[in-house]
Amino acid sequence: MFDVIKQDLVVLEEEMLSAVQSPVELITEIGTHLVNSGGKRLRPALYFLAARCGRDFNHRGVMPLAVALEMIHMASLVHDDVIDSADTRRGTPTANSKWGNQISILSGDYLFARAFSLVSSNHYDERITNRLSELVCDLSAGEIIQNKEIYRASRDVDEYYERIAKKTADFLAICCEMGGIVAGLSAKETEALYTYGHAIGMAFQITDDLLDLMSSTQKIGKPAGNDILQGIVTLPVIRALETSPDAAELECIVTDRNMTQGMLERAIDIVKEADGIVFAQTKVNEYISMAQSVLPDSLPEEIREAYHMAADYISSREF
Amino acid sequence: MFDVIKQDLVVLEEEMLSAVQSPVELITEIGTHLVNSGGKRLRPALYFLAARCGRDFNHRGVMPLAVALEMIHMASLVHDDVIDSADTRRGTPTANSKWGNQISILSGDYLFARAFSLVSSNHYDERITNRLSELVCDLSAGEIIQNKEIYRASRDVDEYYERIAKKTADFLAICCEMGGIVAGLSAKETEALYTYGHAIGMAFQITDDLLDLMSSTQKIGKPAGNDILQGIVTLPVIRALETSPDAAELECIVTDRNMTQGMLERAIDIVKEADGIVFAQTKVNEYISMAQSVLPDSLPEEIREAYHMAADYISSREF
Repeated sequence: MFDVIKQDLVVLEEEMLSAVQSPVELITEIGTHLVNSGGKRLRPALYFLAARCGRDFNHRGVMPLAVALEMIHMASLVHDDVIDSADTRRGTPTANSKWGNQISILSGDYLFARAFSLVSSNHYDERITNRLSELVCDLSAGEIIQNKEIYRASRDVDEYYERIAKKTADFLAICCEMGGIVAGLSAKETEALYTYGHAIGMAFQITDDLLDLMSSTQKIGKPAGNDILQGIVTLPVIRALETSPDAAELECIVTDRNMTQGMLERAIDIVKEADGIVFAQTKVNEYISMAQSVLPDSLPEEIREAYHMAADYISSREF
Repeated sequence: MFDVIKQDLVVLEEEMLSAVQSPVELITEIGTHLVNSGGKRLRPALYFLAARCGRDFNHRGVMPLAVALEMIHMASLVHDDVIDSADTRRGTPTANSKWGNQISILSGDYLFARAFSLVSSNHYDERITNRLSELVCDLSAGEIIQNKEIYRASRDVDEYYERIAKKTADFLAICCEMGGIVAGLSAKETEALYTYGHAIGMAFQITDDLLDLMSSTQKIGKPAGNDILQGIVTLPVIRALETSPDAAELECIVTDRNMTQGMLERAIDIVKEADGIVFAQTKVNEYISMAQSVLPDSLPEEIREAYHMAADYISSREF
């Protein structure tokens, strides 16, 4: 999809495999499994696009931070999978299903720390370590907020936005921003890239939440309505709690820890019959347009185009 | 005990409470609980002692790193308590017993990241972020090694030393070293402090393992032999597996996941009847003497004395 960074993404895979090599065999084994389990590599891709704007772009300077960004993402997924007791992710067994919760918690810790070690041993700008550590604080805080609110039928849309900003949007924003810093772009350009990343991040997470409601097991690897089942109330549901004539029934279902499959299906129907889905889709489109509109004209044409396409891809993805 | 850093430790408590303040109320609540649950503050104390050798010692420059060191320790304990399903620590309810495993895993992540954020936003020497991230890698690796080996009657004493170095000794070594870096001590002095910290760390962990075998619930807050019960084989047991006439019986017990209280007591008796305890105590004394012998003469007298006392305290503690 992004020819301009295709080679970077190939090198990234090699560098990630090399970054998880450890004298402790089990760490190498788990790290290799996680890298080989794949993923969209969206975070490094967004970073590479901005970094490619730099005059003296080279893999030696750019790659350790790319690995660190993806590794932080990977570490947070490892902990998420422990928290959700997930057996598979993207069709591959999770670390917790292969090695148990205890080893997985520790492996997540290891990967977080390894990411910081990669950055601090490669002489990046001080702002970068700083932003990265704040990012991990925010990622955890976002998950803590989400976890605290499970099985509560909050109608607080601002809290939802804050939660998904911390969970997803800030991360994509920081990837774009860091690429800008590494490339030596102006403060104004870097800030615009941050805004772009934040907006596509919001769109990305709302789309994720929509897909969770609407997709089938084949497409996303989990049954529809998994969030509701886990007590997580997302934008379409929050909207339906406001506007549906069956809001009271919906509230009873989404706050019930003993929800049956029948109740779950009824909840999804209520959300679909109300304007929950349409409302969330409209929000996605607003964020995507905003993201595309803030892209600085001063970026090289092929980078601007790639960022434009990335935004379109995010709103249209079906898995 | 250490008059020279008494005031530093008082300020540390305030700074730790302030460092866990967050707009997310639950984070503040958990952080405050953890800080107020106490602890020996051994890591910051070792760091302060070295930092106090600096000519322009001031809390503003020294304190954020002290907080970060204790916070990393705290984060790793929070994850350990999840891993061990521990209900109390130092007589206080653990985070997992109060808020559940999920929130605790995330809070540990938050605390690790907060520690890095404190360091990176306070313009410390680049070496410091680097060493800290490697430290967290090693802490996790040490726990992974330990976890992988549970219920295996390893006789590999080197593996035991490697594990406790990563789990404990490297950390105390780095605390001493960082104090030296912050104080601007010579490379030779800083290295000697590292060696000192490593040696007392080894002694500290072997003592911990001895206390686990010998102490009663009143003294250490858990029943004797808890390590054996959890499948963790420590130095006295490794030694008894080598030297005891009942080694075969001991091996059967420590590798049995369904160990009864009677079996556990028998295992402890076998270790005591062999020279397991004496052997481990001798090792402790060797490490302590070594630590005391490497303390540089060039340190201020009161600091040298305090470090000397710290080593004695570590080998003589009973809880």
